[in-house]
Amino acid sequence: MTKEKSNIIFIMGVSGVGKSTIGNLLSKKLKIPFFDGDDFHPESNILKMLKGEPLNDHDRLGWLQTLNKLAIKQLSMKGCVIVCSALKEKYRDILTANIVDHSKWVFLNGSFEQIKERINQRENHFMSSDLLKSQFDILEAPKKAIEININLTPNNIVEMISTEILKKSEFGLFGLGVMGKSLSRNLANKGFNISLFNRHVKGVEEDVAKNFKNQFKELSTSLPFDDVTSFVNSLQKPRKIMLMVNAGKTIDFVIEDLLPFLDAGDILIDGGNSNYNKTKERFHYLKSKNIRFVGTGVSGGEEGALKGPSIMPGGDKESYKEVQPFLEAIAAKDVNNLPCCTHIGTEGSGHFVKMVHNGIEYVEMQLLAEVFVLLKALGYNPDQIADILESWKESTNSYLLEITIDILRKKEGTDWLVNKIMDKAGNKGTGNWTTIATAELGVPSTMIAAALFARYTSFYKDERIAASLHFVEKTTHNLNLTTEDILKAYQFARIINHYQGFKLILEASKSYKWDLNLSELARIWTGGCIIKSDLMAEFVDIFKTTDNLLTNETIIQKIKSLKPSVKKVVSECILNELAISSFSESISFLNSFAVANSSADLIQAQRDYFGAHTYQRKDDDSNKFYHTNWINN
Amino acid sequence: MTKEKSNIIFIMGVSGVGKSTIGNLLSKKLKIPFFDGDDFHPESNILKMLKGEPLNDHDRLGWLQTLNKLAIKQLSMKGCVIVCSALKEKYRDILTANIVDHSKWVFLNGSFEQIKERINQRENHFMSSDLLKSQFDILEAPKKAIEININLTPNNIVEMISTEILKKSEFGLFGLGVMGKSLSRNLANKGFNISLFNRHVKGVEEDVAKNFKNQFKELSTSLPFDDVTSFVNSLQKPRKIMLMVNAGKTIDFVIEDLLPFLDAGDILIDGGNSNYNKTKERFHYLKSKNIRFVGTGVSGGEEGALKGPSIMPGGDKESYKEVQPFLEAIAAKDVNNLPCCTHIGTEGSGHFVKMVHNGIEYVEMQLLAEVFVLLKALGYNPDQIADILESWKESTNSYLLEITIDILRKKEGTDWLVNKIMDKAGNKGTGNWTTIATAELGVPSTMIAAALFARYTSFYKDERIAASLHFVEKTTHNLNLTTEDILKAYQFARIINHYQGFKLILEASKSYKWDLNLSELARIWTGGCIIKSDLMAEFVDIFKTTDNLLTNETIIQKIKSLKPSVKKVVSECILNELAISSFSESISFLNSFAVANSSADLIQAQRDYFGAHTYQRKDDDSNKFYHTNWINN
Repeated sequence: MTKEKSNIIFIMGVSGVGKSTIGNLLSKKLKIPFFDGDDFHPESNILKMLKGEPLNDHDRLGWLQTLNKLAIKQLSMKGCVIVCSALKEKYRDILTANIVDHSKWVFLNGSFEQIKERINQRENHFMSSDLLKSQFDILEAPKKAIEININLTPNNIVEMISTEILKKSEFGLFGLGVMGKSLSRNLANKGFNISLFNRHVKGVEEDVAKNFKNQFKELSTSLPFDDVTSFVNSLQKPRKIMLMVNAGKTIDFVIEDLLPFLDAGDILIDGGNSNYNKTKERFHYLKSKNIRFVGTGVSGGEEGALKGPSIMPGGDKESYKEVQPFLEAIAAKDVNNLPCCTHIGTEGSGHFVKMVHNGIEYVEMQLLAEVFVLLKALGYNPDQIADILESWKESTNSYLLEITIDILRKKEGTDWLVNKIMDKAGNKGTGNWTTIATAELGVPSTMIAAALFARYTSFYKDERIAASLHFVEKTTHNLNLTTEDILKAYQFARIINHYQGFKLILEASKSYKWDLNLSELARIWTGGCIIKSDLMAEFVDIFKTTDNLLTNETIIQKIKSLKPSVKKVVSECILNELAISSFSESISFLNSFAVANSSADLIQAQRDYFGAHTYQRKDDDSNKFYHTNWINN
Repeated sequence: MTKEKSNIIFIMGVSGVGKSTIGNLLSKKLKIPFFDGDDFHPESNILKMLKGEPLNDHDRLGWLQTLNKLAIKQLSMKGCVIVCSALKEKYRDILTANIVDHSKWVFLNGSFEQIKERINQRENHFMSSDLLKSQFDILEAPKKAIEININLTPNNIVEMISTEILKKSEFGLFGLGVMGKSLSRNLANKGFNISLFNRHVKGVEEDVAKNFKNQFKELSTSLPFDDVTSFVNSLQKPRKIMLMVNAGKTIDFVIEDLLPFLDAGDILIDGGNSNYNKTKERFHYLKSKNIRFVGTGVSGGEEGALKGPSIMPGGDKESYKEVQPFLEAIAAKDVNNLPCCTHIGTEGSGHFVKMVHNGIEYVEMQLLAEVFVLLKALGYNPDQIADILESWKESTNSYLLEITIDILRKKEGTDWLVNKIMDKAGNKGTGNWTTIATAELGVPSTMIAAALFARYTSFYKDERIAASLHFVEKTTHNLNLTTEDILKAYQFARIINHYQGFKLILEASKSYKWDLNLSELARIWTGGCIIKSDLMAEFVDIFKTTDNLLTNETIIQKIKSLKPSVKKVVSECILNELAISSFSESISFLNSFAVANSSADLIQAQRDYFGAHTYQRKDDDSNKFYHTNWINN
């Protein structure tokens, strides 16, 4: 709780709400002067009032300007408290002329009956109902003010005002969509004082932060804003602002909006699914402006964000230390009660790792969809399939398996809801980026590409229907498979998927010199995130001894014991024309990878033949390049 | 043949080479004045020479400056011919001061004996051997001059000079690598007057253009350069310069080097494998400078470039018309003798289409490599495999099939050369870009990705060997397949490959509003390029009636008749652990695509469950989005 600059605190409201009482107490608490506006009326006004004549706006003008001059003078010292009914917006505009950014409004309010009763209880006071009513008639409620009901005790009111106005928050949340809201509540639940920002878009997003604050008890001490200046000014330095806005250009616009108000050393945290290349650009751009940038992956969906997500922050180690207490407090906990949050590496490494997390997730989802295809082809209905998957949990549990069981059991009337869902899969870009990264880095992450393409294929619904009419000749299948075969194939494909995902991260780490720790990554993915699973938990230890899953003895033995099943499942599915592209890709990959001598020799000969691209020889390890005239023998 | 600006033509050489004779004849032919340098000596020099005293450099200074003034004055008019022995470089520097770019040097040369004899034959002339010898002693041969031997008749000499100096080339080739040289010879063979440029890199690339010109008869009228200014000035306007340099940043550097010398309306043609996005950027950048840009795909390798490549130019239609005569003349010819070159579309469409051409090529190569794997597994040696492929030519011929047969037959000693080639496949980026494009455009070009990943997989040779030790248990196969099965599977996979490649082009055409003509593309790919084949020839007509191969009755019937074989081949290979990822992908794709109701329904449910991403319903065609709380039933 720091006070960083002086303010003028105006306390307003109709006669009888207790402005002077509150103002006096507040000035004592804050140790700044108190002024009662009524003491500054010119003699002409006092005469009029003594005669019982009402003041008109012309009478008030000079008086309000006098108070404005007073405020400006006090602002240059310690600031002050000024009480003044200030019932109309235009009076308030005069009072705060030239000092809008340093003026805080407190609006003491209550019902007509409430106030009338209070006035009547005071000694030596009497006010006609008509006069009070006329004040209510002209009252224009202020837009930006701390509104407090006079029901509370004066001490409570003063406490609230000083908290609301002068306390600085430790952490700011910018953007209150689904994820932003959940993270805010998570932070507040952990006892942090936070500031909340959501833009104001007339008729679409109005008072989002304020309404959100009022909706949840844990947010009672949080500060809601819809203007950037006040939001930034409400934060302790170095400021820590987490951006939870749409990835893409929006991030850049938001950064430009914030920059003028930030100071050297402030930290922006991008918690969206931004492209890692963009994060690197932003990291260096902001560094040139002395602003620190932490690009952070956050996984866990709405529920994870609220109860504990997996968090993957990338950026300078020193910047991470500043935000560490917040991120680690709200993160999920692993089996040893350690936070599922760790400093990933510099630049865009946090977003890269989150991107690959999503790539692995695409495959895990696709494999379950293909299990669904297979079990349906064996004649099971969704409830029966859910029962089968339930039995798999003992050996092969994962978050995605669990939610799939819930989904399969969901009914609408007598039918299963899943049957009614349009079978065109959407995507938000991370699977696409992972496939692009794998192409750019020269890593064969075939299963991620296959899962992405399965979604793309699903999207051509009309062309699929047309093709099914041409090419599908029978709709019943003759599948010589057991559910045990399918479980083993599923286990096999999941190992290959994780091998490829971590391999992509490893190669990126080498290329970009990020020095990533695969074991730590597996650890923070054991809780909070969409791909948490029993299998992931196994990898935590394995990656302590090797970066290559395919050299670990436990994994090798698993693959060997599962391989016959996946071969059987895939060959049966190919013969039965079932859509299982990811299962197929899993065994195809191993068959192509576990090959000492591949057919790339012929590819190299072809390239040399038509393009003189040259080739190397197996019997010459000097890396020399050869060219052959292939036509003449 | 146009003369675009005035020049000063200096004719130099020792006494007796015939400078005045040639100078006079040249001035008459070119209709510009003639000046004999000796006529401009000051009286002091004439006196010295009359006394038989040699002139020293101080004597010559004023005289040379007088001639320089004369040249500058004449340049402002029509230009002129000046003869002057100008034996030393420093004399020539004085003569061309301030007019270097507009000075052309002709160096008449011969042997000492030759010149001595000529002088002695002249009436009234006698010159001592000593005097002639002293001239040879001080002669510094000029670096940038047209050197002509005096053996030729005066008329021939004058013809050569006027040709060399004043004739402008119709077309310029910038960059004389393998492809640049072949295209140059192709252009020259078609009768075009061309200018050739290759940079000068001391000790590495010296006199490349000049030596190249001297190497081939067809280039006798071409003009070789290693300085950009002269190269650009040697071209008729609007200039047409084809850049044949490395794709990437080099193109941008070359463009910046050329820009200062170009005029509005000039046309640059990028004939390299540039990224289509970069071509779009360059197109608009150069447009802003009033320079026209044609990004052109060229396929056919070294031989195709020489004898007739397939050419894919993208850019403004008007720009294309300017370069059309050249590109269409050198292109391959289709079965109707039409050029395998057509205006593709605007911006980067030419390079996009070339990129996809290469993507299709990757798959065609990979499928042949997998055929090689299969036939080896059946026990055939490379010669026997070549014989089998030879028999396939009748039904399924292609350029790549033909070269594969040559490759398989190539022996080194008693072994086949292909067996000795290091099995790590290289790539130059176009397969990578195609995979990225397919990811970005939302098109499931699964086979191109699979072929790219097969190359990537091959590159991890050490890890492959390690994996083979762990996972390969037997090295003999029990394949229940015939060569006919394999041929049919190959035919099937090639159809799917071409379907996916053209589909990617179609979707790009829609996204970028390029309005591409698939039939024309198939047509220009029937000759000159790496993917020319009998199958491609079939597509020319098919694409006249549909953009979707999978709706054509002939293709549908082919797929249906071939499908049992590909299913058999792939399932057998999966069971036998053979690396046939592209074959596998071909049938996997059709099995996933020809599906009226896909398992994407479950994917959408999962996305809605953990991320509230919403879904649409099959029973609501209003495109409304639904969200479900999946946990409570």
